[in-house]
Amino acid sequence: MSQNFSFHFQACCSNTKARAGVFLTPHGSVDTPRFMPVGTLATVKTLTPTQLEKAGAQMILANTYHLHLQPGESIIAGAGGLHKFMAWSGPILTDSGGFQVFSLGEIRTISETGVKFRSPRDGSIIDITPERSIQIQNELGADVIMAFDECPPYPASREEVELATNRTYRWLKRCIEAHQRQDQALFGIVQGGVYPDLRSVAARQLVDLDLPGYAIGGVSVGEPGELIDDIVKVTAPLLPEDKPRYLMGVGTYREMVRAIASGIDLFDCVIPTRLGRHGVALVRGERWNLKNAKFREDYTPLDESCPCYCCQNFSRAYLAHLVRAKESLGYTLLSLHNVTELIRFTQRIRDAILGDRFTTEFAGWL
Amino acid sequence: MSQNFSFHFQACCSNTKARAGVFLTPHGSVDTPRFMPVGTLATVKTLTPTQLEKAGAQMILANTYHLHLQPGESIIAGAGGLHKFMAWSGPILTDSGGFQVFSLGEIRTISETGVKFRSPRDGSIIDITPERSIQIQNELGADVIMAFDECPPYPASREEVELATNRTYRWLKRCIEAHQRQDQALFGIVQGGVYPDLRSVAARQLVDLDLPGYAIGGVSVGEPGELIDDIVKVTAPLLPEDKPRYLMGVGTYREMVRAIASGIDLFDCVIPTRLGRHGVALVRGERWNLKNAKFREDYTPLDESCPCYCCQNFSRAYLAHLVRAKESLGYTLLSLHNVTELIRFTQRIRDAILGDRFTTEFAGWL
Repeated sequence: MSQNFSFHFQACCSNTKARAGVFLTPHGSVDTPRFMPVGTLATVKTLTPTQLEKAGAQMILANTYHLHLQPGESIIAGAGGLHKFMAWSGPILTDSGGFQVFSLGEIRTISETGVKFRSPRDGSIIDITPERSIQIQNELGADVIMAFDECPPYPASREEVELATNRTYRWLKRCIEAHQRQDQALFGIVQGGVYPDLRSVAARQLVDLDLPGYAIGGVSVGEPGELIDDIVKVTAPLLPEDKPRYLMGVGTYREMVRAIASGIDLFDCVIPTRLGRHGVALVRGERWNLKNAKFREDYTPLDESCPCYCCQNFSRAYLAHLVRAKESLGYTLLSLHNVTELIRFTQRIRDAILGDRFTTEFAGWL
Repeated sequence: MSQNFSFHFQACCSNTKARAGVFLTPHGSVDTPRFMPVGTLATVKTLTPTQLEKAGAQMILANTYHLHLQPGESIIAGAGGLHKFMAWSGPILTDSGGFQVFSLGEIRTISETGVKFRSPRDGSIIDITPERSIQIQNELGADVIMAFDECPPYPASREEVELATNRTYRWLKRCIEAHQRQDQALFGIVQGGVYPDLRSVAARQLVDLDLPGYAIGGVSVGEPGELIDDIVKVTAPLLPEDKPRYLMGVGTYREMVRAIASGIDLFDCVIPTRLGRHGVALVRGERWNLKNAKFREDYTPLDESCPCYCCQNFSRAYLAHLVRAKESLGYTLLSLHNVTELIRFTQRIRDAILGDRFTTEFAGWL
């Protein structure tokens, strides 16, 4: 691992594989386990960087595919990179765009070289190869960049998944070759679908490449929670203890607790902001639709124990009013609360691991 | 005037009627001249109270008509009033709803009693009388409440305007009678359309009632800037020197400078937030559409001299990206800048009046 990055192990749960650590990056450290908010288009939807910081965000995500389409990496490079462009001084991770490109379905063709597709914005033909994805990510300048992987849909046959997993490995080697910047850590992505043996092979191949961090991919493309749990249980223990482990696209309470119990450190998900924009609050494991009539005259905060700006200043009645009136501030306040809630949830798990209370405190989720 | 309210004269321009003062209310003071942001539905669109405060907002507006329709005054009273409901601890002014009710056109009927109309939300029949408007405003609990007036459209015949102006006066007396709270100041509204003699009569009638403040109404219903200027020139000097003067619905640079030169203290307008939500920035008297191609690679802030969060952290290129991508944060940042810009503009005028530099510094606008 480049000297710019390191993972420091702090504590381990005595009866699960859960662990607490700190991941150091050029733009600051990330306490793990931790939820990372998603800022696809260089904005965590509806929130300012200051609001995000107060929500406890450390590392945030942005997306290579979306930023390539708009505004284009050259405009972001011209600003001095993603951190300056979006005024986020903490660590950033860019996803490679693999997941998004493969989600395009009919309108893309895959070859050993890479993926060709029509831009959903202007219909132009776009070629993304492993080299191109890394080049774009080098220009964007995030702290952590992700390998360009082939992400088969769920369900997919064993044969399809095996082909995709092998290609992902060949592409990873091309990504490593193409990667230019010492101040960016390239993470590999373990694919292998729901097949434990394919996941194992993929994990062992990746570990041999001695990367600064490892992700488990392809688990949020339709699998039920039980399957996610099974995949993580098989894969996580095969990844090196001294490197961060990131479960891509997962950010629900139950799946995070269980993945942490298997040794996962990092999570991301669009859920808190997407729910916020639909008038839904995440409160202690539940989802509350603020359009529900019972909130109209409820003058208590969403969660009295939550330190976020929304809970410290506004009532459920006010939020219900804003959501009914389709007022933008309602979506902002709910997104702010939801992001805070998931970050706090992982922070509480971290504190429990540090105090060796994880399995007792989170027994209900395990 | 109740002891809860007072207007303190600080300075007067030596060669215009421009004046600087402080208006004291139960929730804090307002330095005049000053622009007041509009929070129709108990939210200044897209902005948090903290962002508003940092933008320099002192008194903000909310609207009786809109809040009566949703969420209803009883829900706001249940929260402890508008200040607590929306978490704005500074002064608030509620407009009476007269302007909005009369804008409904075909779907309302006017009588001496008041106005009957169909709710645009659920079709139910709603009656707003002067007494009802004041009762609602008493429940909402703003610092300043407005008389319920008949607001004729522009253009309107002299006869129509005369009838409306006389009725507005009779209604004002009913409003005064109905008003219950010592901690709320009831402002009268001078109507009279574009007819100087009707404005003069109305102003003199209102002054005799010794109200804690006076507004000039009916000037933003389609009149060109020159007419606004003429109306204000005739009306403002007839209003008492020791009471605040408020020009309703006006918030463009030129009209504010000219109205201030005639002795106006307070302004409100939805323009800064409405333009913000359409991707337009107010910059030193100009309107910039951020969708314009020239901003795509412009890495400078909107206005280097602006202290707002948007200008201190983000480039025109980033704003252009957000607006093109229809990202909510773009509308928030532009609204924040625009509100800051108009408040700063009136603050600069105030400073110039205090230093007796108003006519030299703002010569270009006069």
